[in-house]
Amino acid sequence: MRMVDIIEKKRDGGKLTKEEIEFFVNGYVRGDIPDYQASALLMAIYFRHMDYDETLNLTLAMENSGDKLDLSDINGIKVDKHSTGGVGDKTSLVLAPMVAALGGKVAKMSGRGLGHTGGTIDKLESIPGFNTSLSEEAFVKQVNDIGIAITGQTGNLAPADKKIYALRDVTATVENISLIASSIMSKKLASGADAIVLDVKTGSGAFMKNETDAVSLAKEMVRIGKGAGRNVTALITDMDQPLGYAVGNALEVIEAINTLKGEGPEDLTKLVLNLGTYMVLAARDDLDKETVRKELERVISDGSALDKMAEFVKAQGGDPDAVYNTDKLKISDTITEVCADSDGYIQSIQSELIGKSSMILGGGRAAKDDVIDLSVGVVLSKKIGDKVSKGDVIARIYCDNAEKTKEAETMIKDAYTFSREFVEKNVLIKGIVG
Amino acid sequence: MRMVDIIEKKRDGGKLTKEEIEFFVNGYVRGDIPDYQASALLMAIYFRHMDYDETLNLTLAMENSGDKLDLSDINGIKVDKHSTGGVGDKTSLVLAPMVAALGGKVAKMSGRGLGHTGGTIDKLESIPGFNTSLSEEAFVKQVNDIGIAITGQTGNLAPADKKIYALRDVTATVENISLIASSIMSKKLASGADAIVLDVKTGSGAFMKNETDAVSLAKEMVRIGKGAGRNVTALITDMDQPLGYAVGNALEVIEAINTLKGEGPEDLTKLVLNLGTYMVLAARDDLDKETVRKELERVISDGSALDKMAEFVKAQGGDPDAVYNTDKLKISDTITEVCADSDGYIQSIQSELIGKSSMILGGGRAAKDDVIDLSVGVVLSKKIGDKVSKGDVIARIYCDNAEKTKEAETMIKDAYTFSREFVEKNVLIKGIVG
Repeated sequence: MRMVDIIEKKRDGGKLTKEEIEFFVNGYVRGDIPDYQASALLMAIYFRHMDYDETLNLTLAMENSGDKLDLSDINGIKVDKHSTGGVGDKTSLVLAPMVAALGGKVAKMSGRGLGHTGGTIDKLESIPGFNTSLSEEAFVKQVNDIGIAITGQTGNLAPADKKIYALRDVTATVENISLIASSIMSKKLASGADAIVLDVKTGSGAFMKNETDAVSLAKEMVRIGKGAGRNVTALITDMDQPLGYAVGNALEVIEAINTLKGEGPEDLTKLVLNLGTYMVLAARDDLDKETVRKELERVISDGSALDKMAEFVKAQGGDPDAVYNTDKLKISDTITEVCADSDGYIQSIQSELIGKSSMILGGGRAAKDDVIDLSVGVVLSKKIGDKVSKGDVIARIYCDNAEKTKEAETMIKDAYTFSREFVEKNVLIKGIVG
Repeated sequence: MRMVDIIEKKRDGGKLTKEEIEFFVNGYVRGDIPDYQASALLMAIYFRHMDYDETLNLTLAMENSGDKLDLSDINGIKVDKHSTGGVGDKTSLVLAPMVAALGGKVAKMSGRGLGHTGGTIDKLESIPGFNTSLSEEAFVKQVNDIGIAITGQTGNLAPADKKIYALRDVTATVENISLIASSIMSKKLASGADAIVLDVKTGSGAFMKNETDAVSLAKEMVRIGKGAGRNVTALITDMDQPLGYAVGNALEVIEAINTLKGEGPEDLTKLVLNLGTYMVLAARDDLDKETVRKELERVISDGSALDKMAEFVKAQGGDPDAVYNTDKLKISDTITEVCADSDGYIQSIQSELIGKSSMILGGGRAAKDDVIDLSVGVVLSKKIGDKVSKGDVIARIYCDNAEKTKEAETMIKDAYTFSREFVEKNVLIKGIVG
């Protein structure tokens, strides 16, 4: 088999066999196939697409390209969640204890990565003492004991995906449903969960700008997941504005804890109830959808989800009191108000600019080795559809560096647009694929 | 400027600017742009194509990427010829002295390369004593003195083309008219001729299998050449069977010399008269087409082209007697006859198999450092349309290695197909673009 023939076959619209896809993936990871042939194939795939069989085979080949997390010693159904990413997305922090409180096994491996804020792992580190680096043994034991553990990535999961993704990023071959779906699913499959609920974001602040593409991606991922023998559901959700109000690390943890207390933003609360329903349903075949929904509302109202959060924090060496008293989380005490320049209704909020403002403040990594300041960030006070008067506070910046604050302020103002007419609030849950 | 943005622009069907194309070509030659981004761009070009401006700009950027042959010290119009390649193509060896005999300045730089036989330079080395390595000074002086010189490649002409071509070859991005045209023309432009006659081959044994593609390529090259201020004409000619009868190095030189004597194969003679007409026309604005044609016939019939060949051979250190007595050229004295297995008319000859048989015998290079045996080869005795009886000789193999001869014989037999019905001879000259 020769790589140039595989490239030519795809270039001419042919369907790649399992053997050809494995030849490419394994050869590329080993270094036998050079980057320049891989990028030519990826561009040919961009133009010619891959069908379901090809996409599944690519996913499985990437899943099998490295280590896999072995969760077989965990009793019960392991449920996982994945979001395609957006600004202010602290969903995992709320969902994990809610689902664990109802018997789902949440054995989550999470990354740091680049972005407007840190990853889930970075955010958790804003809790005093929290240890995000568990041995596989401790990780499995903790899930068996209390139903929940979250650790940083260990081992070398789906190295083919890492290598291919890095190449796609610099060769303009990112935007292809099959390549996106196989990239996400290969990592998720290698992480070992029985059931996966996908949160596919759509809107101006999401990777998938339009709903049609988001639905296609969701369908492809669900099909792949099922093809690989997992229970997969996808929700299509809004990312036309940041999720909740807080964007930053400690600030998002506080908002997550408030949501567990029943005092969270309306959109975030609604989202965790919806995503949580499908996670718990996968773990509990004794419950129907309506009951699960009520149970999720109960674990918030009776405090058991919050208690589960405290139990989880304690198990990983953190201070459980921080969950009950969020003043223990360090946030910047220099707060700068950003005020509306005109009257009207909030028409749109450019999520990417809000995210960028958080990064400028030091809340996210632009390069892999950047150090994050967990205490900085932005808390919006107005969202789409809210009525404001000139001079009203629309956001607060948490940062003691005046120059960065100034820059962030300009971005935040640029992110907002106002309308004289009444503006409808966004629909959060746009569809379900499962 | 970022390469990834250039790739994305082309991927999305955009038109690349001169600056973007130069950024790519110069960055790639310098090594600042990696192979994997170059191959992604080439695949995007494969799918999205380039328009005339882009193709011209790519050609000029590649032409300017390295050394250029300075022919300004040569008096008169420098004419060059380029063939897109085929089996048995010894045209340059015949044309150069014919055109020089009529006052055209033939300052030809030629390559060795890979293929069924060696390049023009290899072929010339089968003449005893012939020196194919001239200094630029000696080269220019010789053209001024006798109107003709052929030397191996000196300097680093169009290194961008070399690097890009090598990449295209292993990434399935060869077959694109703009990329093919710019590759050929960048080298030709860097070689400094005022006028260029292109021989674009079409047919089963050519790179361009069908005539429509050949015409498109010819039109693109002529347009590029004119855009670069050169006088360019292209002929579309048949390569449905080998050109002439001989395939091999010394064997082809002998056939070329026979053609200069007026004793050459009909197709080769016709081709050099046609190509020669446009070369001489470019050099001699005092002559019309009909006169040029007659003059070309005259230099063959009165021996002046043959004398020019001898003068040329002598100037480059070769034995001029070899031109008058081709027995001085060393060919293998072991000759094996290949005979027809059935009666009928020759319907087709698969040129590539004939070429491959020559390579198997040792007449061509499969890899860059292979040593060529100049004395081996194949001489066909039947061409398309010829009537044969079972047992008639259809070809002769020149080689003293029995095993290789056996292998070549099988290939040659496989190359021929026979018909019981009368078969028309091929039309050699299919069109002119200029």
